[in-house]
Amino acid sequence: MAMYVVGHKIPDSDSICGAIALAYLKNQIGEEAVPTRLGDVSPETQFILERFGFEAPELKLSYAGEEVYIVDHTEKTQAPDDIDEATVVGVVDHHKLGDLTTSTPLECWIRPVGCSNTIIKMMYDFYGVEIPQGIAGLMMCAILSDTVIFKSPTCTTADIKCVEALAEIAGIEDFKALGMEMFKVKSAVEGTPARDLVMRDFKDFNMNGNLVGIGQLEVIDLSVFDDIKADLEADIAKLKEEGGRHSVLLLLTDIMQEGSQMLIASDDESIVAKAYKVTPENSRVWLDGVLSRKKQVVPPLQDAFA
Amino acid sequence: MAMYVVGHKIPDSDSICGAIALAYLKNQIGEEAVPTRLGDVSPETQFILERFGFEAPELKLSYAGEEVYIVDHTEKTQAPDDIDEATVVGVVDHHKLGDLTTSTPLECWIRPVGCSNTIIKMMYDFYGVEIPQGIAGLMMCAILSDTVIFKSPTCTTADIKCVEALAEIAGIEDFKALGMEMFKVKSAVEGTPARDLVMRDFKDFNMNGNLVGIGQLEVIDLSVFDDIKADLEADIAKLKEEGGRHSVLLLLTDIMQEGSQMLIASDDESIVAKAYKVTPENSRVWLDGVLSRKKQVVPPLQDAFA
Repeated sequence: MAMYVVGHKIPDSDSICGAIALAYLKNQIGEEAVPTRLGDVSPETQFILERFGFEAPELKLSYAGEEVYIVDHTEKTQAPDDIDEATVVGVVDHHKLGDLTTSTPLECWIRPVGCSNTIIKMMYDFYGVEIPQGIAGLMMCAILSDTVIFKSPTCTTADIKCVEALAEIAGIEDFKALGMEMFKVKSAVEGTPARDLVMRDFKDFNMNGNLVGIGQLEVIDLSVFDDIKADLEADIAKLKEEGGRHSVLLLLTDIMQEGSQMLIASDDESIVAKAYKVTPENSRVWLDGVLSRKKQVVPPLQDAFA
Repeated sequence: MAMYVVGHKIPDSDSICGAIALAYLKNQIGEEAVPTRLGDVSPETQFILERFGFEAPELKLSYAGEEVYIVDHTEKTQAPDDIDEATVVGVVDHHKLGDLTTSTPLECWIRPVGCSNTIIKMMYDFYGVEIPQGIAGLMMCAILSDTVIFKSPTCTTADIKCVEALAEIAGIEDFKALGMEMFKVKSAVEGTPARDLVMRDFKDFNMNGNLVGIGQLEVIDLSVFDDIKADLEADIAKLKEEGGRHSVLLLLTDIMQEGSQMLIASDDESIVAKAYKVTPENSRVWLDGVLSRKKQVVPPLQDAFA
């Protein structure tokens, strides 16, 4: 029986590139594997796939009765809806340990690094499998994306060394320039419906029984949001109601200024104020130095809810 | 700040030897670590410690505000009571993924092998740290214990290769003979109070909201239980009531006959019958070929409760 290798809902580049890279590795070591995805491919990911000549993995939402290898999450809210009816044979992830459980032993490659693809590179090394040029390119771009070209506080020396090694395999001389090209693609938000933007990189978390959605848009210059900020705010308020969420937060991250404006739709805005020790005005607040949802946004909020 | 390395409640040899071996490794790579334990050391573990000249790790029950590296479990029922107030920095385990969660990223070395110490050996190899002779002996014995000298269905080729490599480092020529010596120590049950025997290797599981305790005694010949079986049965019935448990099961495992007699104290014995497709008589049933709680006893029961 082939296993499916799948990242989280609303897949980012780490989820898509990781599924392709890990499925290739598994096939090389004699375990049949098929990469899949739980949602649309973002413009950034599409750019990466085209740059290295790959098709997007097959869209597959249901996994009941199947074997699944999970990439880039351990939160059930981010996993396939019927994950409890699947057999999870493995997990590769770089986030906090979420509420996914299994009924049989499995393998988990979880490390506190900047990107799941950095760990997948460790897996290639462990099994002694050579990384093909194109797959090295995918993995490298996923790491550059997740670490915001090494600027994110989640970035570790392991990530940097990994990108350098992958760039050599992929034959990319100036990987930072390729990273900037990628973030330029990501910054093109004009003409895209507000809901599509909010959902582009959106994750739900279960925080002490409260459902909290946190979206993030990383751009080179926050001014791209000037004309659409009101639309985004109206949309996150709607999204909060639709999903029965306690809060929806949208991070508008300026990767050059190295900080994020947070737009807030919440049943209780004071919890946000408490988490980040800030005073929002008109449900907006600037968080200086905040680039990482995982490391700088989720843990303080989790603590505030605890 | 030093981290504590600790196995599960009612520690077995894997938990104790693993804590010592992993703490040593962490110190070698520059991360200060102290091995601890959550309970008494079993006669088998005491035998191993004495054989290789080690003291038992310090008994420490509270970890609030501390950094903790968890060995051999991810079930909160088996973890320190105040684990939610600690920072879990890592997990090494070979069981199904339990309900432990964290609020920060961590490392998890989880593999579907027979023993946590097999994975700790992989960690030594990953970091390129030499295993001292005595620690190799501890690790080897833990693997021989968990895999029932390779007879358990949980045993993998990775475990066997690992024992062979560790035996060489430890300078043990006949590791199977040492394993049998160890199981002879384990088989000495006469004169020990029933409660001490039941608790010697006992784990609680949360099965779909029901607390289920499962104990296991592995011996060379089941006849050692002839005179005390009634006492054991009375004790597991009491233990069920005391803890508000749905069931307490005690596996009397004959490692030579390769099977287990299960003693049952349950609010609903039919769930046991359903799980293992057997018909208990007088709340006892023989499970032929069943040596592993983890692989052969827990998953079917989990499914029966689901």
